[in-house]
Amino acid sequence: MKIAVLGTGTVGRTIAAKLLDLGHEVTVGTRDPEATLARSERDGMGNPPYSTWQAEHPAVALARFAEAAEQADLVVNATGGGASLEMLALAGADNLAGKVLLDISNPLDFSQGFPPTLFVKDTDSLAEQIQRAFPEARVVKSLNTMTAAVMVDPARVAGGDHSVFVSGNDEAAKQTVIELLKSFGHTDVIDLGDLSTARGTEMLLPIWLRLMGALGTPYFNVKIAR
Amino acid sequence: MKIAVLGTGTVGRTIAAKLLDLGHEVTVGTRDPEATLARSERDGMGNPPYSTWQAEHPAVALARFAEAAEQADLVVNATGGGASLEMLALAGADNLAGKVLLDISNPLDFSQGFPPTLFVKDTDSLAEQIQRAFPEARVVKSLNTMTAAVMVDPARVAGGDHSVFVSGNDEAAKQTVIELLKSFGHTDVIDLGDLSTARGTEMLLPIWLRLMGALGTPYFNVKIAR
Repeated sequence: MKIAVLGTGTVGRTIAAKLLDLGHEVTVGTRDPEATLARSERDGMGNPPYSTWQAEHPAVALARFAEAAEQADLVVNATGGGASLEMLALAGADNLAGKVLLDISNPLDFSQGFPPTLFVKDTDSLAEQIQRAFPEARVVKSLNTMTAAVMVDPARVAGGDHSVFVSGNDEAAKQTVIELLKSFGHTDVIDLGDLSTARGTEMLLPIWLRLMGALGTPYFNVKIAR
Repeated sequence: MKIAVLGTGTVGRTIAAKLLDLGHEVTVGTRDPEATLARSERDGMGNPPYSTWQAEHPAVALARFAEAAEQADLVVNATGGGASLEMLALAGADNLAGKVLLDISNPLDFSQGFPPTLFVKDTDSLAEQIQRAFPEARVVKSLNTMTAAVMVDPARVAGGDHSVFVSGNDEAAKQTVIELLKSFGHTDVIDLGDLSTARGTEMLLPIWLRLMGALGTPYFNVKIAR
């Protein structure tokens, strides 16, 4: 598949590299490719600059959001939650129309320090905000409940014996995402229902963040024992 | 131990019966014992009236909230979240002072239908509200992330291979609760930290409710795979 991964941070890079390994044609979307490649500093999380990662993954293309989305069959939103609506607007409603939009973002608000709070919750979700802003996109929420490395390598934690959730209004789009998740190695995919169920998965972040503190590592995941 | 279980619903009855089995001296607290025993209708969840349960558990005492709390070494808040502050006020700050208060309640607001929303979240929690209202109580949040039957019989789900969380500001109180949880059969008790971490466990309810819908059963639990 031709896949656009919007976002050049850890989640975007991790997803893009895995999709490339799986044989997909991958374009990473960014606001300004020249500016992205010109940065030479590590980011706030200590990650090397994008140019370093790009040099290690020469087969991944880099393009403006709109260009990346336009040529893609499937679009991954790996931008930070606070910027997602703006970044998707730059991608362009026309370029998202009819396409599966896998939304991995979380509505985290770091303005009051750590742990972050959620800027939307309980009666609405970021996934639903995105769906309302881009009604012709086929939004599926998934993968937002674990750290990036576990998203694409479930076996890294407990031999892969844990769960991943999907929420969405379009059944065929959900099936496409479920197949993608299985190709990543996920074995327990739980379809929660329509996109409003993303309220539940986005509201997992507060305990996820506190578990990272209590366990001293981001390498864990939720399993729904049953 | 002498234990007061505040609340006559499913959670209160289930916890009280288990504590009795474990050899504790159990008093269930209610607003008006005569009125509680006089009810002959099933409740909104289809449970038989308290009097039926009482007849099956004659060794469990029933008393007013204040009387139950006054003679107890440990108090369990098994009242509905929306009523908890009022019920605990009836129990009396003096009767809670210095005692471990195991809070199982969830801040569910059913006024807008199902699924309920949370009436406090993200920047505060019901557990913290209770602690602020009763500063001399030693509040520990736990067990609120699973259905009542699983709280006291973890093996009912996946052979007991799942997790329970504790949050609290008083380390000795948390240890008392952890011992109690282990006596119930819990094997993976995760201490999340201070009482503010109850924001995380209370915010698990939205996905819990949606999982109950997707799985068609309340008999599941979260395991933190790691």
